[in-house]
Amino acid sequence: MTYCCGILVRDGLVMVADTRTNAGLDNISTFRKLHVFEEPGRHVMGLATAGNLSISQAVISTLQEGLDNPETGEKDTLTGCTSMFRATQLVGRAVRHVYHLYGEGLKEADVRFDVSFLFGGQVNGGRLRLFMIYAAGNFIECTSDTPFLQIGEHKYGKPVLDRSITYNTDLYDALKSGLISMDSTMRSNLGVGMPLDVLIARRDASEAELNYRVEPGEPYFHDLRERWSAALRAAHNSIPRPPYGPSR
Amino acid sequence: MTYCCGILVRDGLVMVADTRTNAGLDNISTFRKLHVFEEPGRHVMGLATAGNLSISQAVISTLQEGLDNPETGEKDTLTGCTSMFRATQLVGRAVRHVYHLYGEGLKEADVRFDVSFLFGGQVNGGRLRLFMIYAAGNFIECTSDTPFLQIGEHKYGKPVLDRSITYNTDLYDALKSGLISMDSTMRSNLGVGMPLDVLIARRDASEAELNYRVEPGEPYFHDLRERWSAALRAAHNSIPRPPYGPSR
Repeated sequence: MTYCCGILVRDGLVMVADTRTNAGLDNISTFRKLHVFEEPGRHVMGLATAGNLSISQAVISTLQEGLDNPETGEKDTLTGCTSMFRATQLVGRAVRHVYHLYGEGLKEADVRFDVSFLFGGQVNGGRLRLFMIYAAGNFIECTSDTPFLQIGEHKYGKPVLDRSITYNTDLYDALKSGLISMDSTMRSNLGVGMPLDVLIARRDASEAELNYRVEPGEPYFHDLRERWSAALRAAHNSIPRPPYGPSR
Repeated sequence: MTYCCGILVRDGLVMVADTRTNAGLDNISTFRKLHVFEEPGRHVMGLATAGNLSISQAVISTLQEGLDNPETGEKDTLTGCTSMFRATQLVGRAVRHVYHLYGEGLKEADVRFDVSFLFGGQVNGGRLRLFMIYAAGNFIECTSDTPFLQIGEHKYGKPVLDRSITYNTDLYDALKSGLISMDSTMRSNLGVGMPLDVLIARRDASEAELNYRVEPGEPYFHDLRERWSAALRAAHNSIPRPPYGPSR
């Protein structure tokens, strides 16, 4: 399983991803799912993956090697793209490339071609954007109405984001919300686990302000989990009991 | 869609169910999903349903009419059962009966035989028990280690229950948690909606202490939603921002 969220606020982009993978319940490992492509001053891009690990890794490797461009005879690479839109289309093309290679074999093995991505960043002084890319290579873009996107095990952590994130949320408050959302998910689904990878790209900085791994036992995140639990208990206790019933 | 939860604590049983049904996104209706069978002093049973409405309604009607018992030549009914275990087995038999009637036709129409139930109560001075019954007629029982069960859209509302419910939770605090869990679910999934039906059966009372419908705009529930939102905002604000990053 996997949980990744991307949050796009006025001040910038936050991406948070877990690192747990499992092939069945009895084969659990740690793999990085948040990949950062950066050339400070020119571009910063974060690509978070969910779904079948062999597919997502093949997509990442394909992007790293570049895709053949039959028109130019050259290789198209993420770092050669002149806009986030073109870079997102290139990720979609890489997904379809991998599908053409392995889709049929996976179908024969009764394995679904299951993969999805969050892809955010800024290129060449263009707009800071965040996309979700599907297994068909198509994609949607995050807008200020709902300034976050999620892939993987998204439900447990969605109420936290629904309530706390607006487009005007401070960048590090957005990171805090992403971490709380991740905490809720990890508590309810053992398939999502530490360590966590975090990327922050401040709008128009064209570089990663933060590219950080939150390890198990890291003091701030440990404290966040404890405080959030305590605050929820207090919130719960502060609400009166229902007045319904015969003797109430 | 549907969300129902059942909570079994030391003092008794709480069941909460929404009433929204949808056939596609463009056909939304209100149907009762929490059915109460009661003969005060002898038994009280609550049966909450999720899944295909035609299937769950057929199961309820079958239980109301009784199932043929080839050995006795009589009709087996819920109210004739001498224990919760037997009553739960009877619900399972009713599910299989309905499957034999409609399963093949549904398969031909490419409709999954999708139904599940929460079934709780107390019969004849026996133990107060809570079960989850699957489409195959099999079932699991709620125990004090994890004193709640959910059917339908269960993920959004699970973190709240995970954090707040233990076997020693007060009966009306458990109801409060169930209502908060329902609130979280309704915020994230439009397929779950008001009004809500609530059943409380105090242990060894052998009758419903509360059999209540929470209508939209009902003052306590409205207040609970407002307070919970405000408390979550306050909880969120009380946690310091992450200290990560170059300048922090």
